Amino acid sequence: SGLPSSTIAGRWYTTSDSFSPTDLFPRRHIGPSDRDIEGMLQVCGVSSLQEFSNAIVPKNIRSPKLQLGPVRGEHAVLSELKQIVSQNNTKVRSFLGMGYYPTLTPHVILRNVLENPGWYTPYTPYQAEIAQGRLQALLTYQTVVQDLTGLDMSNASLLDEGTAAAEAMNVAFTFHKKNRRIFFVSSNCHPQTVSVVQTRAVPFNIEVIVGNEATFDPSRYSDKLIGALVQYPGSDGQLVDPSGFVASVKSVGGVAICATDLLALALLKSPKEIGFDIAVGNSQRLGVPLGYGGPHAAFFAVSDVLKRLAPGRIIGQSIDVYGSPVIRMALQTREQHIRREKATSNICTAQALLANCAGFYATYHGPEGLRRIATAINEKAQYLASGLSAMGYNLPLSAFFDTVKVATGEETSKLVQHLLTAGYNIRNLDGNHVTVSLDEPTTQLEVEGLLRAFASFKGKEAPSIDSLSINKTLLDGYRRTTPFMTHTVFNSYSSETEMMRYLYYLQKKDLGLTTAMIPLGSCTMKLNAATEMLPITWPEINALHPFVPLDQAKGYQEMITDLEKDLARITGFDGVSLQPNAGSQGEYAGLMVIRAYHHSRGESHRNVCLIPASAHGTNPASAAMAGMVIVTVEGDGDGNIKVEDLRKKAELHKDKLSCVMVTYPSTHGIYEEHIKEICSIIHSNGGQVYMDGANMNAQVGLTSPGFIGADVCHLNLHKTFCIPHGGGGPGVGPICVAKHLVPFLPGSAVVSVNDPTTSVGSISAAPWGSASILPITWTYIKMMGAEGLTKASQVAMLSANYMAKRLESSYKILYRSQAGFCAHEFILDLRPFKECGIDEVDVAKRLIDYGFHGPTMSWPVPGTLMVEPTESEPLSELDRLVEAFEHIREEIREVQDGLVAVEDCVLRHAPHTLEVVTSDSWNRKYSREKAAFPVPGLRKNKHWPTVSRIDNVYGDRHLCTACVSE
Amino acid sequence: SGLPSSTIAGRWYTTSDSFSPTDLFPRRHIGPSDRDIEGMLQVCGVSSLQEFSNAIVPKNIRSPKLQLGPVRGEHAVLSELKQIVSQNNTKVRSFLGMGYYPTLTPHVILRNVLENPGWYTPYTPYQAEIAQGRLQALLTYQTVVQDLTGLDMSNASLLDEGTAAAEAMNVAFTFHKKNRRIFFVSSNCHPQTVSVVQTRAVPFNIEVIVGNEATFDPSRYSDKLIGALVQYPGSDGQLVDPSGFVASVKSVGGVAICATDLLALALLKSPKEIGFDIAVGNSQRLGVPLGYGGPHAAFFAVSDVLKRLAPGRIIGQSIDVYGSPVIRMALQTREQHIRREKATSNICTAQALLANCAGFYATYHGPEGLRRIATAINEKAQYLASGLSAMGYNLPLSAFFDTVKVATGEETSKLVQHLLTAGYNIRNLDGNHVTVSLDEPTTQLEVEGLLRAFASFKGKEAPSIDSLSINKTLLDGYRRTTPFMTHTVFNSYSSETEMMRYLYYLQKKDLGLTTAMIPLGSCTMKLNAATEMLPITWPEINALHPFVPLDQAKGYQEMITDLEKDLARITGFDGVSLQPNAGSQGEYAGLMVIRAYHHSRGESHRNVCLIPASAHGTNPASAAMAGMVIVTVEGDGDGNIKVEDLRKKAELHKDKLSCVMVTYPSTHGIYEEHIKEICSIIHSNGGQVYMDGANMNAQVGLTSPGFIGADVCHLNLHKTFCIPHGGGGPGVGPICVAKHLVPFLPGSAVVSVNDPTTSVGSISAAPWGSASILPITWTYIKMMGAEGLTKASQVAMLSANYMAKRLESSYKILYRSQAGFCAHEFILDLRPFKECGIDEVDVAKRLIDYGFHGPTMSWPVPGTLMVEPTESEPLSELDRLVEAFEHIREEIREVQDGLVAVEDCVLRHAPHTLEVVTSDSWNRKYSREKAAFPVPGLRKNKHWPTVSRIDNVYGDRHLCTACVSE
Ligand SMILES: Cc1ncc(COP(=O)(O)O)c(C=O)c1O
Ligand SMILES: Cc1ncc(COP(=O)(O)O)c(C=O)c1O
Ligand SMILES: O=C([O-])O
Repeated sequence: SGLPSSTIAGRWYTTSDSFSPTDLFPRRHIGPSDRDIEGMLQVCGVSSLQEFSNAIVPKNIRSPKLQLGPVRGEHAVLSELKQIVSQNNTKVRSFLGMGYYPTLTPHVILRNVLENPGWYTPYTPYQAEIAQGRLQALLTYQTVVQDLTGLDMSNASLLDEGTAAAEAMNVAFTFHKKNRRIFFVSSNCHPQTVSVVQTRAVPFNIEVIVGNEATFDPSRYSDKLIGALVQYPGSDGQLVDPSGFVASVKSVGGVAICATDLLALALLKSPKEIGFDIAVGNSQRLGVPLGYGGPHAAFFAVSDVLKRLAPGRIIGQSIDVYGSPVIRMALQTREQHIRREKATSNICTAQALLANCAGFYATYHGPEGLRRIATAINEKAQYLASGLSAMGYNLPLSAFFDTVKVATGEETSKLVQHLLTAGYNIRNLDGNHVTVSLDEPTTQLEVEGLLRAFASFKGKEAPSIDSLSINKTLLDGYRRTTPFMTHTVFNSYSSETEMMRYLYYLQKKDLGLTTAMIPLGSCTMKLNAATEMLPITWPEINALHPFVPLDQAKGYQEMITDLEKDLARITGFDGVSLQPNAGSQGEYAGLMVIRAYHHSRGESHRNVCLIPASAHGTNPASAAMAGMVIVTVEGDGDGNIKVEDLRKKAELHKDKLSCVMVTYPSTHGIYEEHIKEICSIIHSNGGQVYMDGANMNAQVGLTSPGFIGADVCHLNLHKTFCIPHGGGGPGVGPICVAKHLVPFLPGSAVVSVNDPTTSVGSISAAPWGSASILPITWTYIKMMGAEGLTKASQVAMLSANYMAKRLESSYKILYRSQAGFCAHEFILDLRPFKECGIDEVDVAKRLIDYGFHGPTMSWPVPGTLMVEPTESEPLSELDRLVEAFEHIREEIREVQDGLVAVEDCVLRHAPHTLEVVTSDSWNRKYSREKAAFPVPGLRKNKHWPTVSRIDNVYGDRHLCTACVSE
Repeated sequence: SGLPSSTIAGRWYTTSDSFSPTDLFPRRHIGPSDRDIEGMLQVCGVSSLQEFSNAIVPKNIRSPKLQLGPVRGEHAVLSELKQIVSQNNTKVRSFLGMGYYPTLTPHVILRNVLENPGWYTPYTPYQAEIAQGRLQALLTYQTVVQDLTGLDMSNASLLDEGTAAAEAMNVAFTFHKKNRRIFFVSSNCHPQTVSVVQTRAVPFNIEVIVGNEATFDPSRYSDKLIGALVQYPGSDGQLVDPSGFVASVKSVGGVAICATDLLALALLKSPKEIGFDIAVGNSQRLGVPLGYGGPHAAFFAVSDVLKRLAPGRIIGQSIDVYGSPVIRMALQTREQHIRREKATSNICTAQALLANCAGFYATYHGPEGLRRIATAINEKAQYLASGLSAMGYNLPLSAFFDTVKVATGEETSKLVQHLLTAGYNIRNLDGNHVTVSLDEPTTQLEVEGLLRAFASFKGKEAPSIDSLSINKTLLDGYRRTTPFMTHTVFNSYSSETEMMRYLYYLQKKDLGLTTAMIPLGSCTMKLNAATEMLPITWPEINALHPFVPLDQAKGYQEMITDLEKDLARITGFDGVSLQPNAGSQGEYAGLMVIRAYHHSRGESHRNVCLIPASAHGTNPASAAMAGMVIVTVEGDGDGNIKVEDLRKKAELHKDKLSCVMVTYPSTHGIYEEHIKEICSIIHSNGGQVYMDGANMNAQVGLTSPGFIGADVCHLNLHKTFCIPHGGGGPGVGPICVAKHLVPFLPGSAVVSVNDPTTSVGSISAAPWGSASILPITWTYIKMMGAEGLTKASQVAMLSANYMAKRLESSYKILYRSQAGFCAHEFILDLRPFKECGIDEVDVAKRLIDYGFHGPTMSWPVPGTLMVEPTESEPLSELDRLVEAFEHIREEIREVQDGLVAVEDCVLRHAPHTLEVVTSDSWNRKYSREKAAFPVPGLRKNKHWPTVSRIDNVYGDRHLCTACVSE
């Protein structure tokens, strides 16, 4: 009954079992019961979990027992967190702007999307047939972005505005075939954006000119200028029509990019009308909480010519095999099959859940609603400006959308302080000006309060709102004339009943963890527990602007520091940065840290990165982005790195060796025996070891990157540490580093984070990245404790080995250790069935008929499926998947035995929709019941695909990335 | 855009549209847009909403404009409520016991049930084919109750422990054919239970003897004793084995009843083993939040002989037409067709949602978990007792479960005060003893804190827990030896992943408002908005014990007073009691108030209650419970009361006339023209007018019971005022009364509520009934404002009339006014189709195939369907239902025209499950597609019944009310 009392948290400690909390979490998180585990161990031929993990984890890397704080029960952990985050000051009202704005999240979206596991647990829509709900939502989001920017294509989100701007620079750089090296950035861009762009420019030797677009002359850089980035409206609030500047950039072939604001665009000329080629920005203010910096969906839209260079996932329309319209990820080659060292971006996990929220906000308000909200914001800002003018403040801007700029000279910081005392955060722009950015929630009382505070600073009376007037023509000359969001989806769900039903209608189409296991190898789709998710929508977590003074975020700071400490322990490292918003960004950040380290030692020539052939595509992509030269290391055919090849190449490149990137356990799901040797080879040749922590779920408590000898790793908190995948993001990809690398960890241009003289600079826009989802990982670790986490790793491996054992008589299992074990995932080889015409897609699609999401397809090995069950899946679910695979094996055998032609077989026509199975005509070579209910359990509980197998080629030929019909 | 600024709330007031909140609620709540409304008015042949409602509401009852406070936006209303309820003191820890205990709600249940509209929006499972999810949940709950009490049948919940005890007395009274009139109640029952029983006994002239069962001698009352009620374990904590007393009660033919505690029963001898015939109690501590008194599910279990007397809904197994097992409400005649004046209970709405939560708590913990939780509670209590003993406190009890009783003599109230200062509420039992009741969340720190507080009271040091010992044999002699919860459902969902999926699996079977409209006439299934629902699970709302000192509940008190004020305005009355937990209880309370009024005037002989023949079954049932003689008033054949018959009967019974009960608009959905006349006839004959407010959704803002001339009405907050129906409860049935009746409003035995010298006494166990769901109504009223509420009434009527107009060419519409209008609901007459063999059940079941919940069947008129669309349904959904009805009309015509035999027609075989439609064999006279997709929209979105049409007779013959298989 529960954990030993010594492990119970201080505040809820107990000296006897009578006081042990009844809501201890490990037995809820771990799917198989202790009795189940015994049986599974037996199948694997071992007698205890300890013996089992010892048989898998090489002796020389087994770490001593993990030590973490005491375990909390599910309720106690929330009380403790509540107490911690209560230190955040949510009473000061922030008008700081800079791309982050308080917003009113419609509660129908809060409750039914953000707080609904039906929406937050699914994975990226790899299997479109069971993902039409969120694909529709993402397509809607893209439509909002396309319409408001006027551009030709939007992607399905990027990680934040800063990286989106950097990606835009990259697109422009690539567009010019990397032959141009000067990039202009307006100094009136948000400072964090400028900073991220600067960091990204360094490895490519791009010179970033930060300046004033009014005085910058593109013609001086005619064939050198990659492009130019301006903020529209400006970060200081200024509204100008940049058409002239854009034309001059384009006249020298430069790519014109704007960072912009979707809500402003409801009123203002679209980027397209102005002539921009790319528009980026943060969609946060469309109903997504501030969350102390994230997660939010950055948008990215491009004009036609740049379409095929756009980074990230793109959702598009296509048809299924019967010609019905379907939605799916377009240009899929961009995805898992990311273009490795030739990649221009490494993004995978993005911000799908938040993009969906923004899209739904637009759906609920419709174009009229957005216009009204935008108009109200502008008018509120005008009232403020009018009042400030009346008091004699100097307002230098002739036109603005939401931000009032005040010239305050020497008194600036005193004024800022005065406003703070009155309960308002305003921005000290540059020591001489303040800005006040208004937003949807701003009330009349707040504007009056601001006016009073500005008045009392001058010892004056504030004018009453009634005495002020606003200028209805202020925006004339800047106004958009083009319509937007005219599609019916934006004009159909304006009552809450309609919206709620629409959300449920979409949700029901999709298979999330609420329905079945999602055994995607390398993705670790484990439980996202309710206790972990509840704090996400607490106001103490949600309401903070990322740039508030640190003393207003004491709760966050305490939690973050504590989490960093725990993650350092778990990884065996000394320093942690939570800034990266995804694994890919963690990789890039880690490599930049390694780069900075070499530079700091005068070894800036070290730029060779060794990467095993089997590495995830993001590894070489990230290395390329960090300016490294990639040298591929061969595999040994057994899923391991060929150590001799590694040694050879390390020695060959000895003088220029920067690092190795290695995933551990390997992407083949193997605990390589030679990992320590690999580390020492690299180190002895002057390199650093970067460990991709995607497979950390097999390591926690048993070994650690630090213990093994790596120098840096990233973690995917959205894999091992329970952050839900949200249908394609959010994520958090912190990096953990050894002591010698700590000085180089990411910093921030706005908030003091790390020593700016050594830091690599900003990797993400927000100082602590997607801060508001960190409580998920914090609570998970506190509730599991060291023992619970260790057991989770063991059971994750046990579940994989149990399944592999049970399937080995039906399928060839690739890559197991000499002792016959895989780590936490395993690969089913389907290539033997190619001969009879069956491939991994057929099997994955047929699994849909059995009520499952297919495993990872053709990665890391083409023609295979990689299965990762995780520790959270109950034994009954593992058995159900085994049963499905076994049945499918029999279905394959029917083809192999010539009983049915491959083109007539049930696999080839999978998945089977309700429409197909209930149709009056049926001329298949198999029965309806075989199609729909191949095993009896499905009669009780079955998830149906809503469309038939998708024709991907069609969609890519006829790229359509916005709503055209439902 | 939005409401006039003058109606915006003070704190969010605005002088210009620029500051008008962007989240105003009326346009979200009301389904049809203003443009839709125009079109609907046109169909109805009127030009404005005002003209329309004037055409319906008789001129002489149109009230002046409703006046309420200013309107709040959706976010502002929550800020305001948060501020109000922050005044509740949640820092004092309550150990007050008395049937209410802090508990740990598993968060997987909190998030996925209590906070999930999929669970909280459905109605009572009248259409079992689309309700198997919650029926399974309720059956599980019943199984928990049956197993733990050991008795033969459990119902699906009652309103609270107090009323459950009173219902038990009633069952015993009825069992004895009302020939015995003495009922014994142990003085060691919870005081609120004693009080509710006493109130209920009065109208039946039952003498309640409250005494000590140790000294009470049943044989003295041999053929007069109805039965006896004891608390097991006692309210003061005492644990005795009452077998001897039970035997002596039974030896004189008395019915032995215990009020008990399900968690205690995990350890203790079951009521069945002891010999009890009935067991009742509160299941709250199985994971349901305290909520300042409710809602919670009271349980009620009986032995075999009493089965058919048991009140409330009973869920049972049956089979469908193909012989497959299904679950449905058993003994349905008890329900809509409640036995009117012969009824022994009036209960309809119960506590389904909370019963489900309790059942899920048991499912998640399993029998082992419950035993462990109960054991820990007992041991914690033992530690406390042991420490108190060690300090020299006098502990009179030799055995106890969770409650430690301390003899404190004269110092009692000083000690209670001392503990309060230390942060603990303990119970002052009787001025000479205190009790401390421990619970699942109690921590070691809290026990230590209690010990320290008790110690410091004596100026002593508290002993450390480690120095104390507990007695593992304390419960020997009381222990249960019988197993419980052995069914697989209690041993299958112990990981969170399994539990979450199980909850989703069940949820998906059911049709709630998340899927489609539920046009049940008289039920008002309108939107339960997210904003309204969010506060329900705030700790400020959830965590309070109902009997805390009033100054710890200031937030609740402010909200309650304010809500009472608003409801008084809306109903045109002067006083409100929020105590009744359902409409039925409101009726009873209102009639008791009328009774007390007559008594106060020396007219205790006034006991005749006039009730129209068309009244809802609860009306006569309630009147019977209030000891009244029912005289039925005839209808005029047009849905109205026959005024002349009413006059005749009022005059005939002039001397004994107590009241009339009238539903308005009538149960036929008619705004009777003579309602004022009816009121004055009654008044002039010395009677009072009771108005059943079930149809209040047609009145709000247009007229009111008070304005019309009634003296008292009840409201169903779970109809008109947005409390969700939870699949069969909770509900709130407040009564509103005219000034002369205010002194008689319900009181409480524990908390000071109304003047006990005039009050009718306790109607419910908790002083403010289901307090924790009152914020739903509070927020609804604040967000709608008077104008919004009035428009809601108008649109509710418009939607009904629009549908009636559109359907009048296909169906006969019963009962419209001379001008051709119904009120907010209308009746479709299906009797003309009887001739060809089609009835209202066929149509309702066929509607399931079209994705709808059927309307109210055969009430108030047999052979009809009553449709109530409500104002929240969008026009598109109204049109979808019209389309379905029109198609069904064509399907009927095929039978009428002889194209298909009735036994072969698609209606007779409805609803069609997936299993049927996908089966390999198909020998119907219609196609699969006609069965499943009769209209094209269904291909896009269809809710499937999970079982075929139910065989009710089979189930009632083979009554099985617990889980036997899944
Ligand atoms: C091995 C490996 N590395 C890196 C990544 C990239 O992580 P992210 O999607 O968070 O950017 C993945 C993602 O699946 C992965 O499996
Ligand atoms: C007219 C009428 N009166 C009374 C009731 C009983 O209300 P409750 O179910 O809340 O007890 C109902 C319930 O539908 C009703 O329609
Ligand atoms: O009894 C009813 O719930 O209508």
